[in-house]
Amino acid sequence: MELNGVMIDDTYAEAFPTWICRIIITAVTKEWAHKAATEATGFATSAIGCPCEAGLDSDIPARDTPDGRPGVAIQICTTKKKLKDQVVERLAECVLTSPTTAVFDGLPNAAEKIQVKLHYFGDGYEYQKEVGGRKCWAIPIMQGEYIGEEEFGIVKGVAGGNFFVMGSSQMAALMGAQAAVDAIFEQSGVITSFPGGIVASGSKVGSNKYKFMKASTNEKYCPTLKGKVADSKIPDGVNAVYELVIDGIDEESVARGMAAGIWAAIKVPGVKFISAGNYGGSLGPFKFDLHKIIRDYKVI
Amino acid sequence: MELNGVMIDDTYAEAFPTWICRIIITAVTKEWAHKAATEATGFATSAIGCPCEAGLDSDIPARDTPDGRPGVAIQICTTKKKLKDQVVERLAECVLTSPTTAVFDGLPNAAEKIQVKLHYFGDGYEYQKEVGGRKCWAIPIMQGEYIGEEEFGIVKGVAGGNFFVMGSSQMAALMGAQAAVDAIFEQSGVITSFPGGIVASGSKVGSNKYKFMKASTNEKYCPTLKGKVADSKIPDGVNAVYELVIDGIDEESVARGMAAGIWAAIKVPGVKFISAGNYGGSLGPFKFDLHKIIRDYKVI
Amino acid sequence: MELNGVMIDDTYAEAFPTWICRIIITAVTKEWAHKAATEATGFATSAIGCPCEAGLDSDIPARDTPDGRPGVAIQICTTKKKLKDQVVERLAECVLTSPTTAVFDGLPNAAEKIQVKLHYFGDGYEYQKEVGGRKCWAIPIMQGEYIGEEEFGIVKGVAGGNFFVMGSSQMAALMGAQAAVDAIFEQSGVITSFPGGIVASGSKVGSNKYKFMKASTNEKYCPTLKGKVADSKIPDGVNAVYELVIDGIDEESVARGMAAGIWAAIKVPGVKFISAGNYGGSLGPFKFDLHKIIRDYKVI
Amino acid sequence: MELNGVMIDDTYAEAFPTWICRIIITAVTKEWAHKAATEATGFATSAIGCPCEAGLDSDIPARDTPDGRPGVAIQICTTKKKLKDQVVERLAECVLTSPTTAVFDGLPNAAEKIQVKLHYFGDGYEYQKEVGGRKCWAIPIMQGEYIGEEEFGIVKGVAGGNFFVMGSSQMAALMGAQAAVDAIFEQSGVITSFPGGIVASGSKVGSNKYKFMKASTNEKYCPTLKGKVADSKIPDGVNAVYELVIDGIDEESVARGMAAGIWAAIKVPGVKFISAGNYGGSLGPFKFDLHKIIRDYKVI
Repeated sequence: MELNGVMIDDTYAEAFPTWICRIIITAVTKEWAHKAATEATGFATSAIGCPCEAGLDSDIPARDTPDGRPGVAIQICTTKKKLKDQVVERLAECVLTSPTTAVFDGLPNAAEKIQVKLHYFGDGYEYQKEVGGRKCWAIPIMQGEYIGEEEFGIVKGVAGGNFFVMGSSQMAALMGAQAAVDAIFEQSGVITSFPGGIVASGSKVGSNKYKFMKASTNEKYCPTLKGKVADSKIPDGVNAVYELVIDGIDEESVARGMAAGIWAAIKVPGVKFISAGNYGGSLGPFKFDLHKIIRDYKVI
Repeated sequence: MELNGVMIDDTYAEAFPTWICRIIITAVTKEWAHKAATEATGFATSAIGCPCEAGLDSDIPARDTPDGRPGVAIQICTTKKKLKDQVVERLAECVLTSPTTAVFDGLPNAAEKIQVKLHYFGDGYEYQKEVGGRKCWAIPIMQGEYIGEEEFGIVKGVAGGNFFVMGSSQMAALMGAQAAVDAIFEQSGVITSFPGGIVASGSKVGSNKYKFMKASTNEKYCPTLKGKVADSKIPDGVNAVYELVIDGIDEESVARGMAAGIWAAIKVPGVKFISAGNYGGSLGPFKFDLHKIIRDYKVI
Repeated sequence: MELNGVMIDDTYAEAFPTWICRIIITAVTKEWAHKAATEATGFATSAIGCPCEAGLDSDIPARDTPDGRPGVAIQICTTKKKLKDQVVERLAECVLTSPTTAVFDGLPNAAEKIQVKLHYFGDGYEYQKEVGGRKCWAIPIMQGEYIGEEEFGIVKGVAGGNFFVMGSSQMAALMGAQAAVDAIFEQSGVITSFPGGIVASGSKVGSNKYKFMKASTNEKYCPTLKGKVADSKIPDGVNAVYELVIDGIDEESVARGMAAGIWAAIKVPGVKFISAGNYGGSLGPFKFDLHKIIRDYKVI
Repeated sequence: MELNGVMIDDTYAEAFPTWICRIIITAVTKEWAHKAATEATGFATSAIGCPCEAGLDSDIPARDTPDGRPGVAIQICTTKKKLKDQVVERLAECVLTSPTTAVFDGLPNAAEKIQVKLHYFGDGYEYQKEVGGRKCWAIPIMQGEYIGEEEFGIVKGVAGGNFFVMGSSQMAALMGAQAAVDAIFEQSGVITSFPGGIVASGSKVGSNKYKFMKASTNEKYCPTLKGKVADSKIPDGVNAVYELVIDGIDEESVARGMAAGIWAAIKVPGVKFISAGNYGGSLGPFKFDLHKIIRDYKVI
C-alpha cells in the first residue's frame, strides 16, 4: 500500500494489556497545567526500566473541565498492583506541589476506582468541597489552597501500540515522527510516553551477547548495521528509523491514535516507509493492522 | 533589611549534604536537548516520595560542549548508594531513547566517578570512539548511532537550599517565584527540582494529626490558616507563599543561585517579603544567611 | 453582577466595522505554522500606528486543513482600501519565505474575494495544482515548492471589541488577562492583536496637553493617578488594569470571544473587577453588553 | 574545504550597509520580554516588501540589564531616513503596549543618537526618572507605569550577510538551518530577520519574465528545476536549500555570526553543502569569505 509516495508495510503492531489511570490537571493557565503534567509523567518512558509508563493525553479546554480552568489529561500506565502507588506518589510529589493545580478524575465512568488520599497532607486543616459536581478536598497549602478529587477511575487498556517512521535522512524521519506526535496529541485517550513522544532506540527483548540484559538494540532495524547483520529490515533508501509507542484506554483509541500519527508522518518530505513491530503473538493479544486502521480512520 | 520595598527576613536557609551527578546532554537543537533533559529529570521533585531529586542546571552553548552541539546540563541528586542506579535508569530509559542525544560527564574534574555502562545495549555492535577529547561509546540504534561517555564524576553537594517568596496576591508571588527560577537557571551548578522550579505546598517534617505521614502542610506558612493557627508566620499583607528549593554542586553555587533568585523575585510588583526555612540545625550543617548572600552576590 | 467574587461592571464595549481577510497557514509541524503566522501578524497591534491589525485566530488540526497538515488561522484587519496590499505584502514577505508553509483561504464562503498573486515570484516556472479541492499555485523555491491559494474571501467584520481586567496587583491582572487570551484563542473567528494578546497601556482618543497626539494615556484608568485626576475609574482595591481588544469576523464571534475571555479571567485569584470601554456611540455601531454576553455564552 | 563531511563552497557572501538601532527590552520574565520583542520585530523580514528589517539579537541576563530584569536585545535596520520613524512606531505600538516592558538604549556608545519621544503619551502625567544610571521617562498607564529611555544610539552596520544550507532532504536542510539560527542567537550583535530566522524562498533581483517584479525565485538554486534551467547551482545529492540572512552592527559581528551558524549547521546529519550569495560586487562593499570566517571563528 502506498500513500503520498510512502510505502505502508503490510503488517501489524502487536500490543498487550495494561492498567491505566487518567487524570485531568487544571491550572491558572494552560502553561502551568503543562508544567505539572510534564513533571508528573517524567521518568516514565518504558516499563522496562521506569516505575511506570506515563504521558500527556490531550489538552482539555477550560469550558470542558470541572473547574472551568484550562486543563490537560495525563495517563499513568502499569500493572494493577503498582498503579495506585504510582498515582499517589506522582500526584503527591509532582502535582500537589505544582503552582495553582487542581486534579480531577479523567475516567469518571470507569467501573473500578482507586483512592488517592492526598488530603492527609492537610494535617487536619483540610475540608471537603464540591467543584463542578465533583467531590473534592481542599487542602490549605503555602500558596493558598489545593483542590482535588481523590477517587480515580482505572481501566484495563492497551500498551505497546506502535509504528516505525523510516526516512531518507535522520532529520526527515525525526520530523515525520514529530508530526505524528503532534497529531496523536490531538486525539483523546492515547499517550506517547517516550521523550518528546519518540523512541530513537527501539529494542528487542533480551540480548544475544549480554545475557543479563532485559532488552537490547534491534539490530535488524539499525541503518548502520545494514549489510552487517542478516535479515536487515531497513528498506533501500532508508537511513533512519524512529518508533512511536502508543498506550491508550481502549483498542479503538489506540487504533485511532496510530492512524492519526501515520497520516501525519506521511505528509513529511523524506519519509519513505511505515512499518510496525510484532512478535508473532507472544507479546500480547492486540493486533493493529496498518492497512486496516489507515482505511478506518482516514484523515484526507 | 529592605530591598526595592521588599522586606528580607533576618534568617537563614538550612541545607544538608547530597550526592550529585551532573550530566551534559547535547542534541541536534537546543529544543531536543531540553526534551531529553525534561524527561530524564521528571518525577524527581523531592527525596520524600520520588526516587531522587533532579532538574535542569543550565544551558551549555554549542561552542562549549564536547561535540559542538547545543547542550543542557542536568543534575541527579540522591544518596551515594542510590545514585548510580538512578543515573543508569534515567540515561538508559530517557536519554538513550531520545532523538539525537549524546551525553558527556558534567563534572570531569571530580575525584570520584561512577560507571554507567549503556553500551551493553549495543549487543556487541557497539564500539569506542573519541569525541571532543572524551572517551565515548557509539551504539548502533534505530535512528543511527547514540554517542556517550560512560564515566561520570560525582560530588558531595548541597540539597535543600531554599527561600520563600511571599506576595500580596497569589499571582504576584507566583511571578516572583517564576522570575527567580529564570535567574537561577542562568547560574551554573544549581537546580530547582520542583515542577517549573517552584513549590506550591511547602511542608514540615511529620504530621501532628496523621502519624503515618512523613511530611505534611506547613500550617504556619498557610495564608488561609492565619488567625486559625498559633504562631502564623504570614506577615500582614501577604496572601500567598511559594518556596524555591535549590540543590547544587557546592556551597558557593547554592549561595550564588539563591542570591540570583532573590534579586530577581524582589523586582516583581506585589512581592512583599522574602524568608527561608530552617530547623535549628537538625536538618543539616549548611546555613545560608539571606542578608549575607544578598550582599555577597549583588545583582544591581 | 458578581461572578466568582469578581464584580462585572454594568456597561458595554463599543466597537466598529473593519474589513477582514482570514488565512489558513499550514506547515510541516504546528510549531512551524506558528512561526510563519507570528511573523506575518507582527507590527500589527493597532490601526493607530501600525499598517493594519492582525493576529492568530485559532489552531486548525491537521484533519481539518486542505492539505492535512497542522495549521493556524490568522486574520488581517484594516480598511477595505488597504486590505489587499497588506495581505499581499505579509504573505509574500513573511509566509512564502517561511519554511514548509502553504496558505489557504480561511473564508471560502465569503461573497467578496481578493486576488493575491504570489505566483509571479515563480518567474514562469510556477504551475497550477489542486490541493484538497482548492485551486492552488505551486512555485519552485529554494526549499522545494511553495503551495498556495491566491483567492481569499474578505468580510466586513468587527474591530475593537474589548474588556478590562482589573486586579488587586499587577501580576493578578496580568495572569487574568493571560488566561483570557488562552481562552479566546480556543474560539474560532476572533483575534487579540496586541503583544501576547494584551494591552498594557490602553488609550483615549487625542490628548489634552499635546494636541499633535492621535491617542494618549487613559488617565481615568491609570492606578497611579487615582486621587490625582478627576473621575478616576479605578475601583477601590484595584492596582492594575489590562485591556483585551478583540477583532472578529462577525458580531457573534466577538461576543463569544469576549465572553470566553471574561469567564477565564474571573477564575484567576486577585482579579477584582471587569469593565469595558465605550464612547457614547461615537466610535461605532456595535455594542457588547457585558452582562448579556456572559449569560449568552456561559462557560460554567 | 570539507568540514565534518560537508563541503564548504570556496565563495563569499556579499553584503551592504544599513542603519541600525539596537534596543534592550526588559520585562517581568524572559517570556514577556520575548513577546514584546517578537511583536515589535514582526513584518520585518526583508527591505523589499517590509517597512524595515528587524529581529531578536540575543538574550540579556537580568544581571546585565539596566533595571536588573531579564531582557532581550532587538535590532531595527533600514535607511537612515526611515529608521527613526520605524523605531518610534514599533516601540509605541508594540512595546509600550506590552505587559511589564521597559526599554533601554542597546548602543550606548554610538556617536549618533535618535530621539524617540514616547513620553507624550503620558499627556502631561509623565515624569523623568533614573534607572540603572539611565535617564528614563515614567509614563502612567493602565497597568501602572511604563519606564523607558528615549535616546537611542544608531550605527551604520551591515545587512545581507548570508549563507546557504543545502541538504540531502528538505528536513535535513531545515534542521541544519534551525541549528544555525540557535547558534547565531547566542552571538551578540546580529539578527536573522526572516521567519524563525530562515529563508525558504531565496530570491534574485528582478525577474526574467515578469518585468514588474522587484525580486523573483532564484531558479538556479531551486532543486525541482535542476535539469530544467541552465547553470543550476544545486550540487548532486542536494534536494533542498535554505538561506540564512544576517544583519549586524559591524563587519566583525556578522562574520562571527555567520561562522557560528555554519559551524552549527554542519553538525546536522544530512547537511551536504554550504555556500553563499554574491553579485559580483554590485550589491555592496562587504565580502565575507566562507573559508576565512570559518577559520577565524572556529568552534571546535
